Amino acid sequence: MKTLVVTDPPRPGSAEVARLREFGVATVHEAMGRVGSLGPALRPIQTGLRVAGAAVTALCWPGDNLMIHVAVEQCGPGDILVVATAAPATHGMFGELFATALAHRGVPAVILDAGVRDTAELRELGFGAWSRHVSAEGTVKATAGHVNLPVVIAGQRIAPGDVVVADDDGVVVVPLARVAQAIEACEARLAKEAAAREAFGRGELGLDRYGLRPLLDSLGVEYKSYAAALADGDLA
Amino acid sequence: MKTLVVTDPPRPGSAEVARLREFGVATVHEAMGRVGSLGPALRPIQTGLRVAGAAVTALCWPGDNLMIHVAVEQCGPGDILVVATAAPATHGMFGELFATALAHRGVPAVILDAGVRDTAELRELGFGAWSRHVSAEGTVKATAGHVNLPVVIAGQRIAPGDVVVADDDGVVVVPLARVAQAIEACEARLAKEAAAREAFGRGELGLDRYGLRPLLDSLGVEYKSYAAALADGDLA
Amino acid sequence: MKTLVVTDPPRPGSAEVARLREFGVATVHEAMGRVGSLGPALRPIQTGLRVAGAAVTALCWPGDNLMIHVAVEQCGPGDILVVATAAPATHGMFGELFATALAHRGVPAVILDAGVRDTAELRELGFGAWSRHVSAEGTVKATAGHVNLPVVIAGQRIAPGDVVVADDDGVVVVPLARVAQAIEACEARLAKEAAAREAFGRGELGLDRYGLRPLLDSLGVEYKSYAAALADGDLA
Amino acid sequence: MKTLVVTDPPRPGSAEVARLREFGVATVHEAMGRVGSLGPALRPIQTGLRVAGAAVTALCWPGDNLMIHVAVEQCGPGDILVVATAAPATHGMFGELFATALAHRGVPAVILDAGVRDTAELRELGFGAWSRHVSAEGTVKATAGHVNLPVVIAGQRIAPGDVVVADDDGVVVVPLARVAQAIEACEARLAKEAAAREAFGRGELGLDRYGLRPLLDSLGVEYKSYAAALADGDLA
Amino acid sequence: MKTLVVTDPPRPGSAEVARLREFGVATVHEAMGRVGSLGPALRPIQTGLRVAGAAVTALCWPGDNLMIHVAVEQCGPGDILVVATAAPATHGMFGELFATALAHRGVPAVILDAGVRDTAELRELGFGAWSRHVSAEGTVKATAGHVNLPVVIAGQRIAPGDVVVADDDGVVVVPLARVAQAIEACEARLAKEAAAREAFGRGELGLDRYGLRPLLDSLGVEYKSYAAALADGDLA
Amino acid sequence: MKTLVVTDPPRPGSAEVARLREFGVATVHEAMGRVGSLGPALRPIQTGLRVAGAAVTALCWPGDNLMIHVAVEQCGPGDILVVATAAPATHGMFGELFATALAHRGVPAVILDAGVRDTAELRELGFGAWSRHVSAEGTVKATAGHVNLPVVIAGQRIAPGDVVVADDDGVVVVPLARVAQAIEACEARLAKEAAAREAFGRGELGLDRYGLRPLLDSLGVEYKSYAAALADGDLA
Repeated sequence: MKTLVVTDPPRPGSAEVARLREFGVATVHEAMGRVGSLGPALRPIQTGLRVAGAAVTALCWPGDNLMIHVAVEQCGPGDILVVATAAPATHGMFGELFATALAHRGVPAVILDAGVRDTAELRELGFGAWSRHVSAEGTVKATAGHVNLPVVIAGQRIAPGDVVVADDDGVVVVPLARVAQAIEACEARLAKEAAAREAFGRGELGLDRYGLRPLLDSLGVEYKSYAAALADGDLA
Repeated sequence: MKTLVVTDPPRPGSAEVARLREFGVATVHEAMGRVGSLGPALRPIQTGLRVAGAAVTALCWPGDNLMIHVAVEQCGPGDILVVATAAPATHGMFGELFATALAHRGVPAVILDAGVRDTAELRELGFGAWSRHVSAEGTVKATAGHVNLPVVIAGQRIAPGDVVVADDDGVVVVPLARVAQAIEACEARLAKEAAAREAFGRGELGLDRYGLRPLLDSLGVEYKSYAAALADGDLA
Repeated sequence: MKTLVVTDPPRPGSAEVARLREFGVATVHEAMGRVGSLGPALRPIQTGLRVAGAAVTALCWPGDNLMIHVAVEQCGPGDILVVATAAPATHGMFGELFATALAHRGVPAVILDAGVRDTAELRELGFGAWSRHVSAEGTVKATAGHVNLPVVIAGQRIAPGDVVVADDDGVVVVPLARVAQAIEACEARLAKEAAAREAFGRGELGLDRYGLRPLLDSLGVEYKSYAAALADGDLA
Repeated sequence: MKTLVVTDPPRPGSAEVARLREFGVATVHEAMGRVGSLGPALRPIQTGLRVAGAAVTALCWPGDNLMIHVAVEQCGPGDILVVATAAPATHGMFGELFATALAHRGVPAVILDAGVRDTAELRELGFGAWSRHVSAEGTVKATAGHVNLPVVIAGQRIAPGDVVVADDDGVVVVPLARVAQAIEACEARLAKEAAAREAFGRGELGLDRYGLRPLLDSLGVEYKSYAAALADGDLA
Repeated sequence: MKTLVVTDPPRPGSAEVARLREFGVATVHEAMGRVGSLGPALRPIQTGLRVAGAAVTALCWPGDNLMIHVAVEQCGPGDILVVATAAPATHGMFGELFATALAHRGVPAVILDAGVRDTAELRELGFGAWSRHVSAEGTVKATAGHVNLPVVIAGQRIAPGDVVVADDDGVVVVPLARVAQAIEACEARLAKEAAAREAFGRGELGLDRYGLRPLLDSLGVEYKSYAAALADGDLA
Repeated sequence: MKTLVVTDPPRPGSAEVARLREFGVATVHEAMGRVGSLGPALRPIQTGLRVAGAAVTALCWPGDNLMIHVAVEQCGPGDILVVATAAPATHGMFGELFATALAHRGVPAVILDAGVRDTAELRELGFGAWSRHVSAEGTVKATAGHVNLPVVIAGQRIAPGDVVVADDDGVVVVPLARVAQAIEACEARLAKEAAAREAFGRGELGLDRYGLRPLLDSLGVEYKSYAAALADGDLA
């Protein structure tokens, strides 16, 4: 495990970050071609909150929050702290005191591949947390790791400065180099979705809108009445 | 995997469905003799919602929502869409656009053995969802499956037209042929539970109400004071 | 499995219990030296509730609630019912009728290493529940177990009369013999945390407050600019 | 839960069973159109054993083997005992004594959605077992269930008399009504596989044999040299 | 977490240990009244090995093997090292070098609620290991814990000097104070099992041997022919 | 998801690969500073096999093996096929026919973040497989992905040409750029381990060899006799 702290990673523009926040996780993920999701295992401790920010990354030893202390110092306004662990961990590695320190620095949320605690207090503070576990079990401060090197969290690589978007649907990461492209793709998708929403709201079917009937034919999908299916033994 | 769509499965009467909805999941499950539960793995994305309806069933390939598009067309007022997958899937196979199309057709909810997304939007729409996962990760439209044939979801067989009841406690299925019998059993159980609730509320014990003391005797259960237990080494 | 019911275990003083309740789970766990947590697998069915009480313990056979009926009779005002099972269980072993009976006896909550049901009703009653599962699936009343002997639940030993504290962060147990010591340690910790909270709120860093910089040095942690890290190949 | 024992379910012919055994699990599953697999969670306790037989089905309460005793009496030569539980169970519900009784009746194996024990003794006896767990923890004999009604195990419906095939790859079920059709499909598949094996063994590619190159084109798959990919930023 | 090393815990007699080893895990667990099992999650890395010994217990921080080094010094001939962790751990905390050191001291095996590595080498050495994981990922040596205090591992309390028995079926612990009683109960059970084995081997049924038919009657179990069940709709 | 096939990634020298194979997974992982492990979830289907080779990487849609067919063509002598999926998958995506084709091309093994099947046949062929599941359930050929771009598998990034080492302890990846450094570190570690093995084999303690006693002192670890611990209440 490297023991390195990178002090000044590049960051995206705040307008771009704000735009990605508006789109939300599902739209960003879809628009980028279905990449970047941290999957269903990292869950929010609150509902109805949506955040986006530049990732400040930390790699900790399981059950050891030393490098979170180091990472706090590297965080600035609009950043989101992203904490990976060197092996699976359930500890409550992050709580109200860290949130207080980060809120002072303008950080709105943490993404953590371990446990959080003080969840009632975090909700009261309005500080967002997405984590694998909730646990009251604390940590030691004994082992070094790194800050602002790329980490892998829930199967997804996150480099410092990448944009992290999180809401009730989970977390998605947009690599810094793809931010402009992602925004463009999201705009296009939003327009398309708005049209689809309007169409579905007045009764159009996806089968027709997306031209799926010929595909069903080519796949051999057959329509049959219940009586015929019963007679043919299809319902056994 | 069969590739068949059954177009007109039988449905229960809407009065019967409404009656089952009033009973709720725990009562229906208990009254039917403890069968039909989809277990603890399928969770609601909302709290406080209770729905019931006739199942329209779909079997999809994991990560492929083609057959959900097909199933939407088969749904009518009061139906509930029930989606199984041919192997475990975590994808967000269902979101706001599907909910918009289904709401237009009078469908109040989806039961899905995979992931849902757009959960904030679904809650806002008041469209119910019970699923194994929440995930922003979308799907393809490439592989055929079937609609309105029996499916197995979370260990439970659901045929088209079976009544599905879902609330904060989970999901239970009542086979169409057993609807009348289930309602009768629920009525009986409700009366019994109301009496028990009243009795427990004024301090009667289950031990006495259910006549369990002779059973405890026959099983050899012994009562002992703390001092005696300590002396006998029972508390080690 | 022993088949014994201990009728009069020792209990902590109610003032001590109330004091521990005020501290909350994370503080109690931390102050006792990070022991006693039931970990992330037992989750509350409600948010924002904090309870504490003397444990009345029961060991049940999976899917069998006979010994819960026995335990209810052993519960008095301020007690908390703690239910372990002889092997993993997902059943909804506890619901509204039990809660009604316990509320009558002045019991505010249950901790259960299995499933609960009637969760909407429990939330309405204000009766707290922390459990491994939510499940509508009921139980039989056939097999004996024990009440008020020590049990192990989620890896933690709980003896009758031990104080159980539970909130949004989970559940922690304080052995009866350590209650006074725990309160003292919590008082000290609260004072320390208040000072830290104030300091972090005005921008002090954990690195400085806890004197971690020399430790980082001794562990070989190196600080490097992004440009240097890029040049050295650290970001690959 | 029904409490019924069906005494004389239909059985497949022993020649058909033997033929299905020769094909093995993967071939049968594939030839039937990819249905009937019990999935990756049920594992053999031995390696290198392949069995097939008519299912004698039992549904037990978790941690209760009463209905296995009932099922033994319903087993005859060539049958395979299939045990489901009414809710997830980890107990060692089956061991050497049951195997001794079943071996006497000509039964070669058990499929069990719970735990087995005495695994060393079972391997020594040559009695096959596929189960979800291995566990020394025994059971009670207190609750009724049913024998030779359809059960659902690992998401798969198994009716009495259906053919169960099990080997190192897992377990597959062939509904009694489809046995002849399955054998025919397996024969066809075996011939096709033998040709493919021979072709692949001398270097033919699946891409060519299955005509996949046009599909790749239509899906937009692009081939690129490493140098070009590096230059285009594809490898970041 | 206490930081204490107890240097001279009591041990059982070696004849008693040897006797328990002969019985094996399933028999010991059953004879003691179905207590003491470490359940299905701790698996052997080898097959066909059975060991028993006095527990030397250690509690480690996850991913930290400092206290295993401490525990090695406390181990003597015939002891078995039992390692718990303060929170779930997947690390390979034990490997060939520890086994070499322990084999020199006459220790035959380790029971570990985390990961082991060098599994090929351990099998070659004939050194037994039962663990929750196999993992190549190593550990640090930074955090204190305790040795020869009681630990909880897989839900089971193990005190130093308790007898641990492990084989292909898992691990069971016999409290030191119950060793004589356990041996006596095992002898009785073995005799009973031998008689049952002989009876089952010549075709007697458990239903008759254990007198279960009246129980089935009292539980309302009904026998029915397949034709009647079909006619009654029981097989739907 | 990109749809790209890179045709000529760089590869390590075969002598280096062979050297890394000799070291084995635990040594390589440890010598590189404890990075690169794929963790405990990917398990071998055989015991006693150790392989190493240059990674040819593929990303497939869950339950779709189209890109494995593409990847086979990109494999040459000594390569190891590494297959990731775009979301969790349990399907048996790889079996005997693929192994036949790969063996013809000189490929010794596959690493697969999904299921394998035909495991008995693979063991007979001597073709190695490390996977998350064993499953007979087959796949479709419908969705594009990529070959020889970096993938993330079990939390670990693997680029084409990286060296993969796999044995009974799991799988570790060595980035191509670090191969020489890894070999050097392994040599050093092997020498150190040989000395430690020899020392431990004649009774030296890790406490002394690694100079851990002062650390224990500084951490406040106390040694106490059993009698004293009992008197002090430490064993409660």
